[in-house]
Amino acid sequence: MELLEKKIIEKGVVLPGGVLKVGSFLNNQIDVELLSAMGEEVAVRFKDKNVTKVLTVEASGIPFACFIAQKLQCFAVFAKKSKSINVEGELYQADCYSFTHKTLNKLIVPKEYLSENDVVLIADDFLARGEVVNALISIVRQAGATLAGVSVAIEKGFQNGGDELRKQGVDLYSLAVVKEMGEDGIKFRSEN
Amino acid sequence: MELLEKKIIEKGVVLPGGVLKVGSFLNNQIDVELLSAMGEEVAVRFKDKNVTKVLTVEASGIPFACFIAQKLQCFAVFAKKSKSINVEGELYQADCYSFTHKTLNKLIVPKEYLSENDVVLIADDFLARGEVVNALISIVRQAGATLAGVSVAIEKGFQNGGDELRKQGVDLYSLAVVKEMGEDGIKFRSEN
Repeated sequence: MELLEKKIIEKGVVLPGGVLKVGSFLNNQIDVELLSAMGEEVAVRFKDKNVTKVLTVEASGIPFACFIAQKLQCFAVFAKKSKSINVEGELYQADCYSFTHKTLNKLIVPKEYLSENDVVLIADDFLARGEVVNALISIVRQAGATLAGVSVAIEKGFQNGGDELRKQGVDLYSLAVVKEMGEDGIKFRSEN
Repeated sequence: MELLEKKIIEKGVVLPGGVLKVGSFLNNQIDVELLSAMGEEVAVRFKDKNVTKVLTVEASGIPFACFIAQKLQCFAVFAKKSKSINVEGELYQADCYSFTHKTLNKLIVPKEYLSENDVVLIADDFLARGEVVNALISIVRQAGATLAGVSVAIEKGFQNGGDELRKQGVDLYSLAVVKEMGEDGIKFRSEN
């Protein structure tokens, strides 16, 4: 998506350790106009799949998931990383390692919010090694729901998470695929 | 807001310990159509204040803040509860106790996302004793920004956070104020 790629080049900051910081528009401060347009772009791609739920994980996937769900006119659901006192009843759970927090998390979704009748689109801000997306796919399978596909704002194409998903036949729509990033700037894969 | 009050009565669950569970539409599964309408309602109330940022805290305040920001055509910013590797530079910080997680959190906002030029509307899903909102107000003051007001989806009117803010002259707009909740159901304060 050209608008997003432009914004990444203009506002993204490459930090040591393979971190692409996009906090000024995507996942700390939210450029709502951009996110609305991204939601529309994803909705057009998945409009014929009868999606009933957009599933993401707290916290930084929530804006993207909400704006996709707004355009698809369906619900958004987010997995939590810990059980709080307002979560009760039976849970779907899946382990996943967080690259940005360097911790092992258990992703949790109450069973009441996902069932075999749901058609689920998974959404997140980033896809790198695919740990979060694979944990969310595990939760969709535990629910017996149908996986419509996966959409991420930014895929790190130089890590293998996205290509592994494509090999498995998952319908993956990455709005921007970073081919390389470093001192020479940020370059994108043109295919998509 | 009648639509929200109706939804709380229809879908809200009162749990032991003064917990009002609204995860099926507000803060775990998101009823995006409802949240859009809530965002519109808040935007109408604050439309003349020239709001530049809607400030909330991860995770459950994010959908409400995003939909308010969408209608006000401004940015949303969320405070994080811990520093991740994609957060760098100088930070505003404020301590706050989480009722739902029973932990003391340090709320963090990078200084680059709030400045003295900003007019800030604080938004969150719940207001009870007001600890989160007061921590966010502290961050707005640290930034030297102007506080336009505070909007919450649900105020627990039987706790004192909301009335304390009103006494301090804060322009507080609570979409639903719960007067009492228990075995006899949920009752709302009609004023607002």
